[in-house]
Amino acid sequence: MNGEIISTGNELISGRVADVNARFAAARLHDAGLMVQAITFLGDAAPLFQTTLSQALGRSRFIIITGGLGPTEDDITTAAAATALNLPLCQDECLLARIKECLKARRLPWEERYARLSLMPEGAIVLDPGGAACGFSLKHGGCWLFFLPGVPRELQYLFDQFVLPALLNVAAGREAVSQRTLRLFGLRETELENILQKLCPMHEGVTVGYYPDFPENHLTLTARGPQPEVLEATLDRLTEDLTLQVGEALLATDGATLEEIVGVALRRQQLSLAVAESCSGGLISHRITNVPGSSDYFQGGVVTYSNQSKIDLLGVPADTIARYGAVSSQTASAMARGVRNVFRTSVSLSATGIAGPDGGSPDKPVGTVYLGLAWGERVETRQCYFQGNREQIKILTAQTALDWLRREIRHAQGLSVH
Amino acid sequence: MNGEIISTGNELISGRVADVNARFAAARLHDAGLMVQAITFLGDAAPLFQTTLSQALGRSRFIIITGGLGPTEDDITTAAAATALNLPLCQDECLLARIKECLKARRLPWEERYARLSLMPEGAIVLDPGGAACGFSLKHGGCWLFFLPGVPRELQYLFDQFVLPALLNVAAGREAVSQRTLRLFGLRETELENILQKLCPMHEGVTVGYYPDFPENHLTLTARGPQPEVLEATLDRLTEDLTLQVGEALLATDGATLEEIVGVALRRQQLSLAVAESCSGGLISHRITNVPGSSDYFQGGVVTYSNQSKIDLLGVPADTIARYGAVSSQTASAMARGVRNVFRTSVSLSATGIAGPDGGSPDKPVGTVYLGLAWGERVETRQCYFQGNREQIKILTAQTALDWLRREIRHAQGLSVH
Repeated sequence: MNGEIISTGNELISGRVADVNARFAAARLHDAGLMVQAITFLGDAAPLFQTTLSQALGRSRFIIITGGLGPTEDDITTAAAATALNLPLCQDECLLARIKECLKARRLPWEERYARLSLMPEGAIVLDPGGAACGFSLKHGGCWLFFLPGVPRELQYLFDQFVLPALLNVAAGREAVSQRTLRLFGLRETELENILQKLCPMHEGVTVGYYPDFPENHLTLTARGPQPEVLEATLDRLTEDLTLQVGEALLATDGATLEEIVGVALRRQQLSLAVAESCSGGLISHRITNVPGSSDYFQGGVVTYSNQSKIDLLGVPADTIARYGAVSSQTASAMARGVRNVFRTSVSLSATGIAGPDGGSPDKPVGTVYLGLAWGERVETRQCYFQGNREQIKILTAQTALDWLRREIRHAQGLSVH
Repeated sequence: MNGEIISTGNELISGRVADVNARFAAARLHDAGLMVQAITFLGDAAPLFQTTLSQALGRSRFIIITGGLGPTEDDITTAAAATALNLPLCQDECLLARIKECLKARRLPWEERYARLSLMPEGAIVLDPGGAACGFSLKHGGCWLFFLPGVPRELQYLFDQFVLPALLNVAAGREAVSQRTLRLFGLRETELENILQKLCPMHEGVTVGYYPDFPENHLTLTARGPQPEVLEATLDRLTEDLTLQVGEALLATDGATLEEIVGVALRRQQLSLAVAESCSGGLISHRITNVPGSSDYFQGGVVTYSNQSKIDLLGVPADTIARYGAVSSQTASAMARGVRNVFRTSVSLSATGIAGPDGGSPDKPVGTVYLGLAWGERVETRQCYFQGNREQIKILTAQTALDWLRREIRHAQGLSVH
């Protein structure tokens, strides 16, 4: 059962105001298993509204129209809809009496323009929540139309009170829907698609949405079918099969961020963390401290941007920098060891590299990054070559370092659960 | 000259993701005097896209299409557009070679599906920013079409680089348009609006767009008129008048970020900088090091999240923390002095506070932040009370600290220029 949403208002097409109503209605409908195939924003001009409404009538089983129901001249929705539907406008005497009462209660004088508020296309039914703004609904051919006011609070109330129950009633016997979002890091979108193209045929009724969210990939799995109790099990099985294929690249099935996952793992293992950053410039510390309560496990960090500060603060031997360079496995290793000692933590991370745009060489091009990880007395390093601009290289450095720590703690735990 | 915007993506019609691209483009077009008459969101289904595009062609002089240009199966835009326009799909050999080079540089294997990225409807012109995602444009009948990728950063770059200039050129002859974006920090939007409502009537033909970009306010001034040479002078005069009213709250008229402005000022004055952060968790260092070449003036920073690290790394007296607390003017002062000594810089910043959600007290509620600024032997502190969640308090802390440094350097320079 396909439908669509039409929202009117000059503020929407000028970009001045972010849409709230269409997104609210779309999310509610989607969660209820009712498909929205198009959302259209229009200004307060009647001709284009009429055309758009007529086109929607030809292809949709329901249409939600928001905005343009007020008493002022730019409120064109009711009259334009009547024209498009070829219906006369009729006055609802009951509604008119209510409006007059309402004005009286507020000690406002009657004005002729308020009469417009009681006009509706012939056959429309008032959606009246009692004492608040009204909308109206109308069945035209095989299509249900719902006209709602543009004030978000009023719209949301009418939508939940009248529109959704009515549509669910019309759609009874339809499909149930269940959805899950997975976050992954370390696979390309095309690799993921290859895997899912093989898996999905084995899981009937599931569709997959791909959302690159640099540097992560997010997947939405949606299962549809007549039996709601089967859908969650279908998503569980697909998630399990996918995990077998992608392994540790799967970060979370519950929306947790990488820094939250690392935080939970550090806390569970009673580990403390310190960070030494050069090319990431503080981004690793920033991400870790975005998590409330991170002071429980995060002792602190240093941003040693100059060579001298690597020597002074972290005890990196001047000789190491002179012999191997500040961007080297040896320096990364000494930084990780140094920052663990300074902050007296159980584990530490370090990053040194060339974020660009300058500073690269044929030997160590822009994007060359060495990461270090110290755990007790053990120190390991990794060499990475990242592609991108300065901002992207910083982001990839921080993400890869945090992801490395996540994997190390998982291995130490010997756990394969998420 | 009327146009419209079509954005594709299942995440938009399911309400899962808020639209960013259409609103960005609509606002930019509106400010430039180009009218958008409709914005349509569609899923990843080709037939409805083709119908919508055909209808748009019949009534619009330009169409911006966003999303669906990637290599995966749900990327239907290019092929569907070719069908709707009745044009064959052609391979751009130049683009194909570029894609192959790019894969090679990233050491990724060639896959047949990447070839899709070099397909375009016959006659299309590649919008190539060099080294980043491409789009394409096409003139069909009297209508200009622009196809842009769905990643906001990529779209925004291509839009400002290619689309807006092209459309302003097409629209030339009606009216000339000149535009300027001002970035401000430290005023509420209503204060700004009051100031501009008084100023604008004195500057004919100028319209103002307001874009809160937390924690800054961005203003777009657009001047329109028959004589292009007059417009820049009009914007200059309005900018001057505005500067008299808002003073140092005006950060930039050329799009420079706060960290870029601070960087230019430090470099010009041959100053070096170090940063000691507690509640901002590394965000100040992260922002400073987002600027290419920042290693010239930024020596480094420490994130002293624990009390012990404030004592060990910065030499904050244990007694100061015990007597006044880690969140105090005295600790901020000792941190600023300490980090300046450790990194041997001419100036330094420090921040210590309560980012929340826990840790507040009646005396020092969440949002209480002390900033320190050391310049040579002089150390000053400021007490701030920020409103917001943890993320917003971190952002406000970093922004206020950097803005304080910007103002201090201006005063030291005795300059009033931007």
